[in-house]
Amino acid sequence: MTDARTNMRLKLPITCFILEIILIILFGVLVEYDDDTDAKKWHAMVNKSQGHSEYENEFYYRYPSFQDVHVMIFIGFGFLMTFLQRYGFGSVGFNFLIAAFSLQWATLMQGFFHGMHAGKIHIGVESMINADFCTGAVLISFGAVLGKTSPVQLLIMAIFEVTLFAVNEFILLTLLGTKDAGGSMTIHTFGAYFGLMVTRILFRPNLEKSKHKNCSVYHSDLFAMIGSIYLWMFWPSFNSAITEHGDDQHRTAMNTYYSLAACTMSTYAMSALTAHDGKLDMVHIQNAALAGGVAAGTAGEMMLTPFGSMIVGFLAGMISVLGFKYLSPILEEKLKIQDTCGVHNLHGMPGILGAIVGAVTASVATRDVYGDGMIDVFPDVANGERTASYQGGVQAISLAVTLGIALLGGLIVGFILKLPIFGAPHDTTCFEDNLYWEMPGEEASHEDQLTTVNTEEAAKLNS
Amino acid sequence: MTDARTNMRLKLPITCFILEIILIILFGVLVEYDDDTDAKKWHAMVNKSQGHSEYENEFYYRYPSFQDVHVMIFIGFGFLMTFLQRYGFGSVGFNFLIAAFSLQWATLMQGFFHGMHAGKIHIGVESMINADFCTGAVLISFGAVLGKTSPVQLLIMAIFEVTLFAVNEFILLTLLGTKDAGGSMTIHTFGAYFGLMVTRILFRPNLEKSKHKNCSVYHSDLFAMIGSIYLWMFWPSFNSAITEHGDDQHRTAMNTYYSLAACTMSTYAMSALTAHDGKLDMVHIQNAALAGGVAAGTAGEMMLTPFGSMIVGFLAGMISVLGFKYLSPILEEKLKIQDTCGVHNLHGMPGILGAIVGAVTASVATRDVYGDGMIDVFPDVANGERTASYQGGVQAISLAVTLGIALLGGLIVGFILKLPIFGAPHDTTCFEDNLYWEMPGEEASHEDQLTTVNTEEAAKLNS
Amino acid sequence: MTDARTNMRLKLPITCFILEIILIILFGVLVEYDDDTDAKKWHAMVNKSQGHSEYENEFYYRYPSFQDVHVMIFIGFGFLMTFLQRYGFGSVGFNFLIAAFSLQWATLMQGFFHGMHAGKIHIGVESMINADFCTGAVLISFGAVLGKTSPVQLLIMAIFEVTLFAVNEFILLTLLGTKDAGGSMTIHTFGAYFGLMVTRILFRPNLEKSKHKNCSVYHSDLFAMIGSIYLWMFWPSFNSAITEHGDDQHRTAMNTYYSLAACTMSTYAMSALTAHDGKLDMVHIQNAALAGGVAAGTAGEMMLTPFGSMIVGFLAGMISVLGFKYLSPILEEKLKIQDTCGVHNLHGMPGILGAIVGAVTASVATRDVYGDGMIDVFPDVANGERTASYQGGVQAISLAVTLGIALLGGLIVGFILKLPIFGAPHDTTCFEDNLYWEMPGEEASHEDQLTTVNTEEAAKLNS
Repeated sequence: MTDARTNMRLKLPITCFILEIILIILFGVLVEYDDDTDAKKWHAMVNKSQGHSEYENEFYYRYPSFQDVHVMIFIGFGFLMTFLQRYGFGSVGFNFLIAAFSLQWATLMQGFFHGMHAGKIHIGVESMINADFCTGAVLISFGAVLGKTSPVQLLIMAIFEVTLFAVNEFILLTLLGTKDAGGSMTIHTFGAYFGLMVTRILFRPNLEKSKHKNCSVYHSDLFAMIGSIYLWMFWPSFNSAITEHGDDQHRTAMNTYYSLAACTMSTYAMSALTAHDGKLDMVHIQNAALAGGVAAGTAGEMMLTPFGSMIVGFLAGMISVLGFKYLSPILEEKLKIQDTCGVHNLHGMPGILGAIVGAVTASVATRDVYGDGMIDVFPDVANGERTASYQGGVQAISLAVTLGIALLGGLIVGFILKLPIFGAPHDTTCFEDNLYWEMPGEEASHEDQLTTVNTEEAAKLNS
Repeated sequence: MTDARTNMRLKLPITCFILEIILIILFGVLVEYDDDTDAKKWHAMVNKSQGHSEYENEFYYRYPSFQDVHVMIFIGFGFLMTFLQRYGFGSVGFNFLIAAFSLQWATLMQGFFHGMHAGKIHIGVESMINADFCTGAVLISFGAVLGKTSPVQLLIMAIFEVTLFAVNEFILLTLLGTKDAGGSMTIHTFGAYFGLMVTRILFRPNLEKSKHKNCSVYHSDLFAMIGSIYLWMFWPSFNSAITEHGDDQHRTAMNTYYSLAACTMSTYAMSALTAHDGKLDMVHIQNAALAGGVAAGTAGEMMLTPFGSMIVGFLAGMISVLGFKYLSPILEEKLKIQDTCGVHNLHGMPGILGAIVGAVTASVATRDVYGDGMIDVFPDVANGERTASYQGGVQAISLAVTLGIALLGGLIVGFILKLPIFGAPHDTTCFEDNLYWEMPGEEASHEDQLTTVNTEEAAKLNS
Repeated sequence: MTDARTNMRLKLPITCFILEIILIILFGVLVEYDDDTDAKKWHAMVNKSQGHSEYENEFYYRYPSFQDVHVMIFIGFGFLMTFLQRYGFGSVGFNFLIAAFSLQWATLMQGFFHGMHAGKIHIGVESMINADFCTGAVLISFGAVLGKTSPVQLLIMAIFEVTLFAVNEFILLTLLGTKDAGGSMTIHTFGAYFGLMVTRILFRPNLEKSKHKNCSVYHSDLFAMIGSIYLWMFWPSFNSAITEHGDDQHRTAMNTYYSLAACTMSTYAMSALTAHDGKLDMVHIQNAALAGGVAAGTAGEMMLTPFGSMIVGFLAGMISVLGFKYLSPILEEKLKIQDTCGVHNLHGMPGILGAIVGAVTASVATRDVYGDGMIDVFPDVANGERTASYQGGVQAISLAVTLGIALLGGLIVGFILKLPIFGAPHDTTCFEDNLYWEMPGEEASHEDQLTTVNTEEAAKLNS
């Protein structure tokens, strides 16, 4: 299996070293501690204001959420993709690599677009959460191409995707004043359609040669459940991580909690209903049960009510299972979209649903319901700069903008990744860790081991 | 294995859809955001009081504990039960389903009993923790019947158990003024004896037909350790999640931490001591080492002292291992109680121990020890409404009430579950995922795969 | 495999019982709740000061960090070591046992050295974090001897190592005024060189008899990745857990986050570069990618800058992979150091690097950079008691002291562990769970199970 084209001995180190050295230089030139992380600035702030205490550092109100998001990115996404029988190392390992790169690159790109301070990017726990969010979009795209790309291709993809993510985020959040706390649009819709377009361009007509490895085994499905359940549990933290303090974070977490619970119920129902023998399908459980989190990503911070959240989650689970069952095969056969993890069903359609729910919920927002809290959720509406229905229109336009940038970006990046220099696997070696990883030996059967031991002990006794 | 009786194609979707639609309607009619999650109400509160800041939202003082509890419910319980060799999907998957249902239903039942506000149930992070707690009791009962019930039976069980849990909790916490922060009685004793009675009624005389699957294999024991260790680590958060703020949460977490550490020591000691060859048994390690958390569930918030906590944990571990070793076989043979996970040893007896320790600790509480903190731990004693020894008596009565409701409830629910319409497995197909789950293929051996690849590559080179 | 020498039936219970009873007695005599956990003292404090509220209890500012550290100790270390194919029970199980013992013993030892209050040790969340930290050092040493020691040997090792850890920590933090928040010296360097010396003394010339089990298989490497990724994710919490409140905790977490990200990039680069076929090695990914956390353990709380942190992490990853590839074989062949987990590469060298970076960073600290925050990071420099370069010198001396105590301590403890009474495994039974654990049966192949079921069902139908 040694093959100069796919050999990573020089390609990967060169890519990693160049990227990291560029990152270090740019961090050295551009990045500074923000007010809450800088020893001098923070102490000056605490000393100045009487009421301001050490305990009001942003760290204490965001860091627990950050860590939950961090677990979703590294354990959640990483292990969710270990469902493939011989791609566990690649799933969790490449997830690790591109996430570690993306969060650094995202710090720079988002810092650049979110506004510099005298030529410097200021960072703290909020920028760390945003960097992890952006990384999430890259990992969603990774799910679409899982098993069919080299680590170098993935890093190249991450460079461009992080950049375009930051551009799209800037257009939505800053230019348009869109609300999208949990990223139904900026993260899920963007990541999914970007990845789907990339995998479309990288279409492999002979992928069936690796078909026998493009499936799970019993234990790999259990590993995948670790990732899935962590994503499910911490999604409330994800959606609420960067909302305003107080009721906003609290409400967003709770809405997401109920959306996910309802989604799980409809996922199990649909999974049994669409199977000819009524048996539950692990693919649905691992993925569709999470759609409720995606679909609550925009409206979760709004006054969606627990009841509204449950309806959204309920619909998201149904759509997602139906997508896995009926739409994915069509996408693959007719549109030549080989979507390994089915990200269209987990992130694509539920993301669009979430954006629509957000637009509708925004358009009916009233001061009667939000009170003085309106300023946190819809500042432009509270300030009288726009009406609620105008805000709803902006939300809808934002979805279109996101889809456009994602598809166009995926198209271009797909063609870049087609360059035959990045060490992509052959059609016969997709979904196979053996290509890029040193493989451990097979487990000697237990009986063999006992025999070995006994023989050796016997030899010892005889000597 | 297709069998109309156990086929879930219609039974499960109908149950899930009906239940979720009822939940959504009831949430729509009855449930409202509480003061800390409602945009209008929270901002009105913050504006009114000068000192009240965004940072005092309950979210920041409960949500990290909530997430730890959430991990215990979905990863902890779910993976602890994956020890069975061919029931990993059912363990983590049905755990997921019934927990997602129970937390919604518990929100309504507990909200109803905990006091409505003008006909509405108010919810926030504290109700979310309570809903997860109630779910914990259902999952304990699930452990007793694991592998022997259909998902529909489990949902039916959850409906009734959640309701009875809320009744028992209301009697204890509201009517009797019992203290039970970590639920030694309300959660563990209740869940265990309810489940034991259910499994008694569902007794299967021919269960030995599935006996060869009612055991672990090497890897399944490692998956179970993930669940076990998470339960162990986060138990301090569990017991302290809804105690009063300040010293109470702090002390409860610390007492539980030391109780668990001591329990682990006695578990290892007893496991080796009771084995004829001195070998440690994974069943003991996975379960008995957690008994210290159960046993500190009532007295953990009291001034139990670290030293007292360690004695409690030490005893709990010993009792639990002895239960697994000597009592469980007797229960199975003489009393016909087929307790798959041994919940009697992990939750039953340690729960009773915890209740007794709580009663004794309460009865010796003095103002000298608690100072002004008495009001948080024993409000009725602090207010002079009852003496400490009276409080101790109430605690003891609460244990009896809990046992009574659990056993009677389990009896009735057991008979309901016996109705032959819920798709229960046959005696020969217990502990087997194949019945309710689409099974993935077996892993092709690595050598086979290499052969395939080489053959294909050779073919390619020849062409 | 029953052998009186390695039989744990009496050895382990006697050791556990004696140790736990001593712990309980000492806790009873010496340990008290601190001001934040004691009902009376805390309420007296809250009542006295007007501004002091329930929300200022230390619990809320340390407990989330504590839980992250706790996960690192029990899941992180425990599962990282499950990479061995037949030592998963021993890895996670003995990790569990010695951690549960060590945290109790560390509470006493550290409490004794950190200063008693009228003859009493006061404990709360900060002492819990410190106890977990000390436990970390023991687990690092465990990594060096993994698979070659009995649980009794490990407990004996823990008794001495915890004691010496507390002595070294006292010398550094109290006597010398060294800064070492994340323990590059006190935890990592100490634990690594202590363990390396122990394993040197316990050198087994015939260890190749167990060689075929001293390696991983596919699934065991995935279990190990769970441990590794948790360590990686929560390392920012580890390094910041006991720094001062405010900017200090915030900055330390962020520095560590960027150090780890850069480290991951250089780890992947070096792993591919040093493999003859360019394939990534799981051992490197699991271990070397964490070196960035170790190396940021001392300077992480200083004004290292994100850019500086990334350089440190980048170097740490490179050094660590090179160590695994080229140094470990030399250590084993020439110096007879059989380091099962390669702790020298993950904790030893990166720990020394971290100590050096800390010394250099301290020596260039200026009031211009730290402002009033100087008092938190370098109190002696802020007070004018010493210059920054003197502080740097103290940091360097502290490394030497740590190495000295670790090596000398390991030497003595190694000889103690050589006593033939602790049930150490034979050379032929190392790295094998079968020796100390009841082994579950092998998994019946799925086809067999189906056959069994069908046969039984057929029999039933015929009857």
